Amino acid sequence: MTLAEQMAHMRTGAMYNDLTPELVQARQNAVLLTNRYNASFGRPQPERERILRELLGHIGQGVHFEPTLRCEFGRNITIGHNFYANFDCVLLDAGGIEIGDDVLFGPRVGLYTANHALDPQERAMGGCHARPIHIGNRVWVGAGVHINPGVRIGEGSIIGAGSVVTRDVPAGVVAAGVPCRVIRPLTAEDRTGFAP
Amino acid sequence: MTLAEQMAHMRTGAMYNDLTPELVQARQNAVLLTNRYNASFGRPQPERERILRELLGHIGQGVHFEPTLRCEFGRNITIGHNFYANFDCVLLDAGGIEIGDDVLFGPRVGLYTANHALDPQERAMGGCHARPIHIGNRVWVGAGVHINPGVRIGEGSIIGAGSVVTRDVPAGVVAAGVPCRVIRPLTAEDRTGFAP
Amino acid sequence: MTLAEQMAHMRTGAMYNDLTPELVQARQNAVLLTNRYNASFGRPQPERERILRELLGHIGQGVHFEPTLRCEFGRNITIGHNFYANFDCVLLDAGGIEIGDDVLFGPRVGLYTANHALDPQERAMGGCHARPIHIGNRVWVGAGVHINPGVRIGEGSIIGAGSVVTRDVPAGVVAAGVPCRVIRPLTAEDRTGFAP
Repeated sequence: MTLAEQMAHMRTGAMYNDLTPELVQARQNAVLLTNRYNASFGRPQPERERILRELLGHIGQGVHFEPTLRCEFGRNITIGHNFYANFDCVLLDAGGIEIGDDVLFGPRVGLYTANHALDPQERAMGGCHARPIHIGNRVWVGAGVHINPGVRIGEGSIIGAGSVVTRDVPAGVVAAGVPCRVIRPLTAEDRTGFAP
Repeated sequence: MTLAEQMAHMRTGAMYNDLTPELVQARQNAVLLTNRYNASFGRPQPERERILRELLGHIGQGVHFEPTLRCEFGRNITIGHNFYANFDCVLLDAGGIEIGDDVLFGPRVGLYTANHALDPQERAMGGCHARPIHIGNRVWVGAGVHINPGVRIGEGSIIGAGSVVTRDVPAGVVAAGVPCRVIRPLTAEDRTGFAP
Repeated sequence: MTLAEQMAHMRTGAMYNDLTPELVQARQNAVLLTNRYNASFGRPQPERERILRELLGHIGQGVHFEPTLRCEFGRNITIGHNFYANFDCVLLDAGGIEIGDDVLFGPRVGLYTANHALDPQERAMGGCHARPIHIGNRVWVGAGVHINPGVRIGEGSIIGAGSVVTRDVPAGVVAAGVPCRVIRPLTAEDRTGFAP
């Protein structure tokens, strides 16, 4: 199978072989491109966005990652407008990552779309399966949060620092913990009257 | 407002606009300075401390960060004597960080003094508020610990690996967990008779 | 005491002084060597393995760390064949780390073999004690997992993302949480029929 065929197969959620030369090479290319992006910190924004556009699938206006960004492949990631990720973001995008508009990531956030096989022997042979992750508009993912394969976080929600998100989180809530659980809805009382 | 005025406003705990050109520029400067500090690893100690003194607000003698140190602004951080932070320390210091003497940080410790607005619309407009973090003398913060805005950790206490500290921790205890809770007091029985 | 004598003493589990010039120097050498390894990403595999063999105690065939690898000393680490660690692995190996064959680490895994003294005064004087960590064959350690001193993880087991492993984990199970607990055994039903 070509790389494109393997990527398409991966996106179906079926078991795939993580160890093919094409996937190993694509991962290496992604590291080298993120190295270039990370090393370009401080350079003019258009120059940096050009590297991001080469690395990622599709991005909107105003997408910024503090150093050090790491991706698995990069090309399976789409990001909306006005995205900000603080230090050390890790995006493992085998299964596809979709991030909406006005999303904020704290430092050391990790999104992981792939799992290795559960069976040790299948795992040792390279068996993996992947599921997409969706982050809705205006979501804020707190520092050090881990997001597992297949998770969908609804619009406007907040994930507390250090959470491990193993299931979907609905829109408009604060959720936190290991595993992450809804703590309360966001309400009109959370407005402070702030205007820039 | 000038940068100094914005910094002073931030320290009051009031809502502030995170997206002003002055703050964006100050954050970029901090990354470039930490890049210099991190790249200076292995160089003579006085040369490295000179960079730290340029970056941070005030530091004592014997302050060492293993690579890779990351700060938000740097200048709102004060550190006492004999401080050691293991790999990948993240200090978001909008609200001010005060660290006492003889403090030890394990790898991947993060201190976060600012929260984004809870309301998604205010958040998208850049709304933030900050509260200071205080780490007492002889505190040991374990690996991978996250410390939230406003937290104060009392003298001599130990925070277990992987904890998320959302409230104050008193002096002289072992605390751990998500969220972090006191497990037991430190007592004379914790002495081993060690002498260097 | 020479460095070798200090290392041998450390491995006994007795209290040791973390702040001797020999240990400080050995840590600095390890950072400089890991810097070389991390910077060699993309270079031919034999060249990269040569650096790893200089850094680590003993490694098998097919040992790969995505950037950025960090070790405390390096030389107290032994790794079997076909090891893969995703981004940002941290190995504090004062007490010795043994990793079997076909082991997989997710991103941001940390193994910590040493604890500082519990007593604040002994801690400030450099008091530490260490215990070895053992990772069995075909273990998969999920993203962001912290493994504490003295832990032994049995063959084939899986540690869920974000776990803090404070006690031994038996062979053939899925375990997760803070602190990490066994969730269920792995069984024949976990096989999918995958073949590469």
